Amino acid sequence: MPFTRKDILDIASLSAEDIRLILDTARRMKEISRRPVKKVPTLRGRTIVLFFYEPSTRTRTSFDIAAKRLSADSISVSGSSSSLVKGESLIDTARNLEAMNADIIIMRHSSSGAPHLVAPLLSASVINAGDGAHAHPSQALLDMMAVEEHKGRLGGLRLSIIGDIAHSRVARSNIAGFTRMGAEVTVCGPPPMMPAGIEALGARVETDMDEAVRDADVIMMLRIQKERQSDYLMATDREYARFYGLSSERLSLARPDAIVLHPGPVNQGVEMPPDVADGPRSVILDQVTDGVAIRMALLYLVTEGEDPHAIAD
Amino acid sequence: MPFTRKDILDIASLSAEDIRLILDTARRMKEISRRPVKKVPTLRGRTIVLFFYEPSTRTRTSFDIAAKRLSADSISVSGSSSSLVKGESLIDTARNLEAMNADIIIMRHSSSGAPHLVAPLLSASVINAGDGAHAHPSQALLDMMAVEEHKGRLGGLRLSIIGDIAHSRVARSNIAGFTRMGAEVTVCGPPPMMPAGIEALGARVETDMDEAVRDADVIMMLRIQKERQSDYLMATDREYARFYGLSSERLSLARPDAIVLHPGPVNQGVEMPPDVADGPRSVILDQVTDGVAIRMALLYLVTEGEDPHAIAD
Amino acid sequence: MPFTRKDILDIASLSAEDIRLILDTARRMKEISRRPVKKVPTLRGRTIVLFFYEPSTRTRTSFDIAAKRLSADSISVSGSSSSLVKGESLIDTARNLEAMNADIIIMRHSSSGAPHLVAPLLSASVINAGDGAHAHPSQALLDMMAVEEHKGRLGGLRLSIIGDIAHSRVARSNIAGFTRMGAEVTVCGPPPMMPAGIEALGARVETDMDEAVRDADVIMMLRIQKERQSDYLMATDREYARFYGLSSERLSLARPDAIVLHPGPVNQGVEMPPDVADGPRSVILDQVTDGVAIRMALLYLVTEGEDPHAIAD
Repeated sequence: MPFTRKDILDIASLSAEDIRLILDTARRMKEISRRPVKKVPTLRGRTIVLFFYEPSTRTRTSFDIAAKRLSADSISVSGSSSSLVKGESLIDTARNLEAMNADIIIMRHSSSGAPHLVAPLLSASVINAGDGAHAHPSQALLDMMAVEEHKGRLGGLRLSIIGDIAHSRVARSNIAGFTRMGAEVTVCGPPPMMPAGIEALGARVETDMDEAVRDADVIMMLRIQKERQSDYLMATDREYARFYGLSSERLSLARPDAIVLHPGPVNQGVEMPPDVADGPRSVILDQVTDGVAIRMALLYLVTEGEDPHAIAD
Repeated sequence: MPFTRKDILDIASLSAEDIRLILDTARRMKEISRRPVKKVPTLRGRTIVLFFYEPSTRTRTSFDIAAKRLSADSISVSGSSSSLVKGESLIDTARNLEAMNADIIIMRHSSSGAPHLVAPLLSASVINAGDGAHAHPSQALLDMMAVEEHKGRLGGLRLSIIGDIAHSRVARSNIAGFTRMGAEVTVCGPPPMMPAGIEALGARVETDMDEAVRDADVIMMLRIQKERQSDYLMATDREYARFYGLSSERLSLARPDAIVLHPGPVNQGVEMPPDVADGPRSVILDQVTDGVAIRMALLYLVTEGEDPHAIAD
Repeated sequence: MPFTRKDILDIASLSAEDIRLILDTARRMKEISRRPVKKVPTLRGRTIVLFFYEPSTRTRTSFDIAAKRLSADSISVSGSSSSLVKGESLIDTARNLEAMNADIIIMRHSSSGAPHLVAPLLSASVINAGDGAHAHPSQALLDMMAVEEHKGRLGGLRLSIIGDIAHSRVARSNIAGFTRMGAEVTVCGPPPMMPAGIEALGARVETDMDEAVRDADVIMMLRIQKERQSDYLMATDREYARFYGLSSERLSLARPDAIVLHPGPVNQGVEMPPDVADGPRSVILDQVTDGVAIRMALLYLVTEGEDPHAIAD
């Protein structure tokens, strides 16, 4: 099946077939990263711009490594070193990058919808690497990949997402992705952090953490943004941990083979204690490994638009 | 004709033949950027250092892409991450980069003359990517390339440069370049921003904006540096736009086929309104595309010193 | 002889045979940097992360160039742009980089022992690029390489290291390296900057600068950290220069063929005047050139673990 999307802006605009193709392509890509020579010539001579308005180690590094393993040329343009200090608009900058014949622009921005604004104006592909509280599609795809590797399937799984649902682009993209693939999604978090109308996205709301965890196949803990902690009406990390943290006792309420995800970095002892984060049920580092594979798949598919049958070194 | 310059420090030190060779070489380079595989092995194994003391997206990114499309290795050294914080002098840093066997040092600096200070001390090539208010030769070359593409020639054209002439390295380099190639250059801007003795550079001074635009083939709008706005004795953007902005009405005074240039980014509604900046006479994005081609040509010529007959993939 | 170390954390953990192999390998690597095409395919497809928590031009650039000349992919992660701003721990970040299948992590950190903490947790190689006041092994190795090139040997040489011994990782690593290779090391500096028990590392302490210089084969001047100057109980640069600077008069007390080293950048007129820093006895720029060669050797040896007999283009 050919891949016909120019851009990867959010999960909502991907069909189940698109997601299937991305996951299958990523599995082949993952094998490349296990070789001593982790490089194929597939995207040689393609120009990929990493256009990050917000700081990021993981996502930027992951895309950068993905680009290099496909032999593409990657160029970083960050907010601080860019001509944004000259007041250049987002659209101007994007048009300029395209005028330099960039093939793919990978964009992170603090404003929801920023990549959606830019993409239709460009013939270059735009991949959203996180926009405000809106979407983070490559994160949701890597989460789905990690879950499928461990569970053998996505359909019929019970996924619980725990934390600040209202402000989380990770939550939003994962609700869209997992429900699209037939999983059942429950969300749980402090009441002020539960957005009104979240059920419309297809998620069930649970206010009691124990109930959210009970019988889950997959528990996805979101990262607490410390700067928003006062909004939780909770004075301390300890209080948050008590109500919404994933202790090993609480984890025992889930299915015996339940797995634990977190987009990283974990606030140790807040979202979960070290014995859970580093324990046998945690797949946090698998998520990171799969992130490179997913990003290789996305770069490949928006460029080549087809099954990666021809990938070899 | 072989190219014999080690460095590209300013336009004034280039002959008409040098400029001709650069423009012709850039035209061949431009074709490479239109291919799916935008890469030739020409400068493989060459070490190019992007040594930027001032923030820059466009120029740095353009040189970086140019280096990568020629398969050179490019390394970025910026003011903020550099050992300048340890008080290392410019000359020391440049000597160090050369001791690491850098082939080309591309340098942007806030002090006029900085690259001229460094270049004679090094056997590596130095390319000036903008020094203070002095020179920005690759910008002038890309402007000449864009004009020649649209007008078919440079000789005999009437070019008007509008804005803060006194503080503009872009203006200075373009006056030198266009007059060298036989064009007629007029400059116009707020009186406090017109340097004394500018006629000595070969430009005609015009104080009335309408007269500067009248019958021009090419209108080059300079970017207003907001932080210098009080020097213009003009309180508001609107006032600047009224006296020195390029409205579509004013543009109608120029030749019917006149084109509009701007080094970017445009202060929307100040130097010109969006209907001009994004209109059919604007060649602003062509300038950006040609920038990569010119920089590929410069990197090639200072390294190889000859006609690029052998460039192929 | 095969090289069996996974990591390069400090000089103390290297045997004389290890150091010999590194120096011999670096000599072959240096030849590559003299070619027009400064690149061999040896480490193609290897992922090398430059993980710098402290600003650095020389060391980071040197490692970056070394990686590229061996055709490895290098990715920079700096403190300022990293998710350290999110409070991610050092160990978490390192584990994440490994989960992305990084082969080598080159790490600079302000805390002594940081790389030693991380290395045993990873299967990736860790190269210490400077940790607090503890160690800077690649600097000591390049210093040994530069000395051996000029003196033809290390054993039996008299090396004097001058400056703030207590806070210098360069001093510590050089004492370990030069004594291991049979040189005789004397240290000299302001009394508050001489660590207690330095003799245990194998260095002789000399309080009088003239005596420290007298009959030395090699004089290594350390860089004065201006921010620590008040600790020296010396009010001015001039006072420091008088007591511990290397004037040409003082240099004349050394062996007639003595050489002068400095890790750079020199505080001109403090550690030494320009006529010494740029004079015929200075090998400061040779140190920089050798730095690239040493780092190529380290990247090669931790990856390939053997004699570089097969290196060719």
